[in-house]
Amino acid sequence: MNVTIVGLGLMGGSLALALRGKVTRLTAVEQHAATRQYALQNRLVDQVTDNLLLGVKDCHLLILATPVRTILRLIPMLPNLRANGCMILDIGSTKNAISEAMGKLPPPFRAVGGHPMCGKEVAGAGAAEGSLYEGQLFILTRNPRTDKVAEHIAEQVVTAVGARSLWLDPKIHDEMVAAISHLPYLVSAVLMATVAPQADGQHGGDERLWSVSASGFRDTARLSGSDPAMLRDILLTNQTAVLAQLRIYQKQLTAVQGLIKRGDETEIAAWLQARQTEYTVYKGVMSKE
Amino acid sequence: MNVTIVGLGLMGGSLALALRGKVTRLTAVEQHAATRQYALQNRLVDQVTDNLLLGVKDCHLLILATPVRTILRLIPMLPNLRANGCMILDIGSTKNAISEAMGKLPPPFRAVGGHPMCGKEVAGAGAAEGSLYEGQLFILTRNPRTDKVAEHIAEQVVTAVGARSLWLDPKIHDEMVAAISHLPYLVSAVLMATVAPQADGQHGGDERLWSVSASGFRDTARLSGSDPAMLRDILLTNQTAVLAQLRIYQKQLTAVQGLIKRGDETEIAAWLQARQTEYTVYKGVMSKE
Repeated sequence: MNVTIVGLGLMGGSLALALRGKVTRLTAVEQHAATRQYALQNRLVDQVTDNLLLGVKDCHLLILATPVRTILRLIPMLPNLRANGCMILDIGSTKNAISEAMGKLPPPFRAVGGHPMCGKEVAGAGAAEGSLYEGQLFILTRNPRTDKVAEHIAEQVVTAVGARSLWLDPKIHDEMVAAISHLPYLVSAVLMATVAPQADGQHGGDERLWSVSASGFRDTARLSGSDPAMLRDILLTNQTAVLAQLRIYQKQLTAVQGLIKRGDETEIAAWLQARQTEYTVYKGVMSKE
Repeated sequence: MNVTIVGLGLMGGSLALALRGKVTRLTAVEQHAATRQYALQNRLVDQVTDNLLLGVKDCHLLILATPVRTILRLIPMLPNLRANGCMILDIGSTKNAISEAMGKLPPPFRAVGGHPMCGKEVAGAGAAEGSLYEGQLFILTRNPRTDKVAEHIAEQVVTAVGARSLWLDPKIHDEMVAAISHLPYLVSAVLMATVAPQADGQHGGDERLWSVSASGFRDTARLSGSDPAMLRDILLTNQTAVLAQLRIYQKQLTAVQGLIKRGDETEIAAWLQARQTEYTVYKGVMSKE
């Protein structure tokens, strides 16, 4: 099976490393010359091109690994590039808009939406790791171009990279990741936006602030380093679900502000205890996975 | 030198392990029988008692390692327990109220406030590690009972546990940790309060939500598991500074909500890029430490 990956960032590059040696030929389509050179030098793929037409020419499986809105622009181009169709899997961070676009492809195409629940706060092929997907959840979503063959191929990819599959409705997927992934990012980025100016010595801040920071700040602020291009497309294609999560978060934040203002010891203790209990339940579920 | 540690939680227990073999005699005062038994069985200290009077009887250095408001209750009791004074170091999470209480002790006492910038989201002596303080920052604060001898002893403790000292004004300390430690905790706990009910299958949530979570949620929500007793005392003794940080955070959160609602691609991209740049600056400073 010939596999073509469009986009050699952290996720596409890691997928290439995980699939290496398990497919007949691995081709990458990548627009940045430096990344193309890096991919060849580090043997991420067998061949690399900046020409989409050439890249998809003989492929059986096309994996779209760019930010979401680039995937949305690529899908309608495919019928003109490959008249006889192929299997398409994407690994974009939101799934509803992509599923709709895939559903509009003509029948020779097969397509499954994918979202591996892993990542790092460092972007780019240079950060790629063949083990990134190992043991992680790989969400799959159906659309009108998903048949048994398409499901089977998608499952094979998930198994090949060492991940576990979970089939979800694309709309439910987008609502779930708004809570479990997009909200944590925003919470972390807003923390960075709050604290960074206070640590900026050139603008009236106290430069010692970063030195005083420990693992608590480090972990909570880690996601603020995530790839801006990926996140821009997430926020623009999952706007409604993200805003719904932010509304709940705002409400909870206002509640805790009131709690601290009132300074009632029992009330504060109960709120803190409830969070620790929730954390313990969450850790319990995760340790069984 | 005889050292007595009051409170064998995560921090006091780890301090005991780090000081073991470096002092003449290590005594612990601990109210929980199970913790006293654990401490003896695992040789955290040489002897352990639940009687404060006995515990401080022959000590040269008294380390207070309980939640802040317990420290505030203990300090005024010391003149009645040890008429001829001793050296006191505390490791409470806020420093202004403790410094004021220390300043009111009679002159035979020497005292320094301390705050090691390390920890874990797991509480209790069972989670104690002798290496917890290694390479970490140990903030020290002065008060009217701090003389050269007191400074020297405090520095010796910091060196003995493998940490680095930084002297700060107690009020400035409290303002700094409100931003770099208390705010991250609240941000993390509010995230947990927002998401946990949505994962609660018994109350209309979707139990698959935790399974879908990855390292991003794990790291951002980690602090929500922190010790409620420690945090209750932090929020009650650093109310003003914490509320000031929450106000800035609320403002930033409202701004990002507006950004997502407007859906302006360029504006969103610039905001996300600014956060990644701030994260890169922060990582750069930390890597030099």
